[in-house]
Amino acid sequence: MIYITRREKFSAAHRLHREDWDEQKNFDVFGKCSYPNWHGHNYVLYVTVKGELNPETGFVVNIKHLSKIIKENAIVKLDHRNLNLDVEFLKGKLASTENVAIGIWEQLEPIINELGIQLHSIKVEETENNFVEYFGN
Amino acid sequence: MIYITRREKFSAAHRLHREDWDEQKNFDVFGKCSYPNWHGHNYVLYVTVKGELNPETGFVVNIKHLSKIIKENAIVKLDHRNLNLDVEFLKGKLASTENVAIGIWEQLEPIINELGIQLHSIKVEETENNFVEYFGN
Amino acid sequence: MIYITRREKFSAAHRLHREDWDEQKNFDVFGKCSYPNWHGHNYVLYVTVKGELNPETGFVVNIKHLSKIIKENAIVKLDHRNLNLDVEFLKGKLASTENVAIGIWEQLEPIINELGIQLHSIKVEETENNFVEYFGN
Amino acid sequence: MIYITRREKFSAAHRLHREDWDEQKNFDVFGKCSYPNWHGHNYVLYVTVKGELNPETGFVVNIKHLSKIIKENAIVKLDHRNLNLDVEFLKGKLASTENVAIGIWEQLEPIINELGIQLHSIKVEETENNFVEYFGN
Amino acid sequence: MIYITRREKFSAAHRLHREDWDEQKNFDVFGKCSYPNWHGHNYVLYVTVKGELNPETGFVVNIKHLSKIIKENAIVKLDHRNLNLDVEFLKGKLASTENVAIGIWEQLEPIINELGIQLHSIKVEETENNFVEYFGN
Amino acid sequence: MIYITRREKFSAAHRLHREDWDEQKNFDVFGKCSYPNWHGHNYVLYVTVKGELNPETGFVVNIKHLSKIIKENAIVKLDHRNLNLDVEFLKGKLASTENVAIGIWEQLEPIINELGIQLHSIKVEETENNFVEYFGN
Repeated sequence: MIYITRREKFSAAHRLHREDWDEQKNFDVFGKCSYPNWHGHNYVLYVTVKGELNPETGFVVNIKHLSKIIKENAIVKLDHRNLNLDVEFLKGKLASTENVAIGIWEQLEPIINELGIQLHSIKVEETENNFVEYFGN
Repeated sequence: MIYITRREKFSAAHRLHREDWDEQKNFDVFGKCSYPNWHGHNYVLYVTVKGELNPETGFVVNIKHLSKIIKENAIVKLDHRNLNLDVEFLKGKLASTENVAIGIWEQLEPIINELGIQLHSIKVEETENNFVEYFGN
Repeated sequence: MIYITRREKFSAAHRLHREDWDEQKNFDVFGKCSYPNWHGHNYVLYVTVKGELNPETGFVVNIKHLSKIIKENAIVKLDHRNLNLDVEFLKGKLASTENVAIGIWEQLEPIINELGIQLHSIKVEETENNFVEYFGN
Repeated sequence: MIYITRREKFSAAHRLHREDWDEQKNFDVFGKCSYPNWHGHNYVLYVTVKGELNPETGFVVNIKHLSKIIKENAIVKLDHRNLNLDVEFLKGKLASTENVAIGIWEQLEPIINELGIQLHSIKVEETENNFVEYFGN
Repeated sequence: MIYITRREKFSAAHRLHREDWDEQKNFDVFGKCSYPNWHGHNYVLYVTVKGELNPETGFVVNIKHLSKIIKENAIVKLDHRNLNLDVEFLKGKLASTENVAIGIWEQLEPIINELGIQLHSIKVEETENNFVEYFGN
Repeated sequence: MIYITRREKFSAAHRLHREDWDEQKNFDVFGKCSYPNWHGHNYVLYVTVKGELNPETGFVVNIKHLSKIIKENAIVKLDHRNLNLDVEFLKGKLASTENVAIGIWEQLEPIINELGIQLHSIKVEETENNFVEYFGN
């Protein structure tokens, strides 16, 4: 078993805010992240897959192929988008880094499984100080 | 003459878009940066000042004092904000990295001058691939 | 289960040295780290916690709350301190990165447990080339 | 159990190419990595070992000793070399990052075992966007 | 006058070696860089241009346009190539970082001039420890 | 004229403190940097030299030679040392980053001049947020 990781990036706007809370409660819980006119981040995404070495190529997976899958199934939906307004797989969810990581896992896992390898983890960095990792259920 | 630089950060939303252009022209010029629902970045700001060494302290300027000035006069106005909607000193300007750098220069220069030192440059990184530097007029 | 990590930093002095060894033996084992007048590092600390997603907030834990706990229970005791002389939880121990990581784990684990989540790992980088990870007993 | 990691670097040339495939098939599978006159990378190697704390030193392992082992048994064979032509332990294998990581594991594991500690993982970064991890069989 | 910088990357093989010197003299001067079977690097290129702000766009130059120029006139000639064998603009020159930087300047300057802005500097990082900057004649 | 930069590192302890001020005044000016038992940093040093290209080697200066000069004339005096107690060229000066940069300049400039090239700048990073540059008198 070998693990291989591809880094991709997306820049997006978001806001942490519950409609069913008033502004004060939103601010108490979410702080500056609740400001009304959005803010944003340069998110960094690490997708780690694992599998056996293919002796013909020396690869677990062709990293260019993996990159294409990530771009087509996650980055294009997230990059230069508003996570609260534009992202189908986050509809009805708070746009926290946790939910972004879980959402990306759900987008990518079935497609990566079809390659005969396994998705191992999704890591999403929101800033250089904060990141989330998800390994599936 | 010694140069000292302080790094600060802010996370903000923005959009590149002209009201007097239609969507197609905005997209042709600004690409994904013109998407309607905003996107955002972790901006990194480097403020460089220069001056003589103060022999009493060994400092050009107390870096904690410089950091406080940057935070109170720039970061608080930019962090977790929407550059197009929330920032007084960008009103009526396109929210490009160039204009952000010039705007921060104009906020900080008079205050730094009062310290008896000079503002040398403002550097703003929008992403790890793009940055702007401004040295004043 | 989701994992979330907060990065914090502290700058500290230390020395690797045993009173019961002579200078030569200290130098043979600890090299330059045994020099008598201390040296120091910009340590980087990564605290990873894990837990279920709180559906009300979209968080495993409020990262600002986690940051506050780390600062009050670890950083304030370590930052701008001498690890050999000033740190209660390192008394009687060699000020190795290993012992720093274990000590931080012991400071933080009971407090993080009270939040209903688990401390997963403590990672301490001494330099860009050396780091230690501890996952508890 | 504590985990300690040492970062080392090597700069090497390589090419992904199978003699039993024609140029077109090589290009279809390996892309630019199949170009005939080699290309190269600044590889970054992370060697993680694990073990009990030695109470006499506060170390799992003396990191300078670990660094010396990595340099003598891996870096010297890889640095400023051609991975396809010069590296004994890659002979007959495709010079993929996966095979480099496995090869380094095989070089280091018996020597690290002799220290009474265990090799936990070999991580090899080929670029800032691609890396491989191997944890043994 | 504003300065804007674009970062691009290329991975290439090279060797420092003079045909008119014997192996010993090549090794004395160039060290491991003279090894016969090539080695390589992940080069990082920073292209800085300067000009007046275009009030219509808020840009000195459209960074996507600048990126395209760099890719078509420099990166495509260097990436996954052998600097000694494959690069027209380095023919007959030693493949030092200095000559790479000068060569890239000469490729880009006439094209950037046509945009009504000026090329300010070419910075080439060979490793995290070594980089070269060229500002033209 | 080409500019070439070498990065080197040193880990040192220091303290900002004036004997002729009482503890309160020291704390008011220097804050945590005045704590009595020292603290420390992983300093990063960038030495930039400039000169004409040597057509025989393609170099401004052999970077390995430059590295050796920096190590022998600066790093060995600073690394794993106490900047206040151990460093001859800082005696009688406050151990500020500014004074460290000026001191390194004075150590290196005469030796670099002998090579027929010029020292252009000394940059010293104390942390990822603070750095100083000195270009001589």
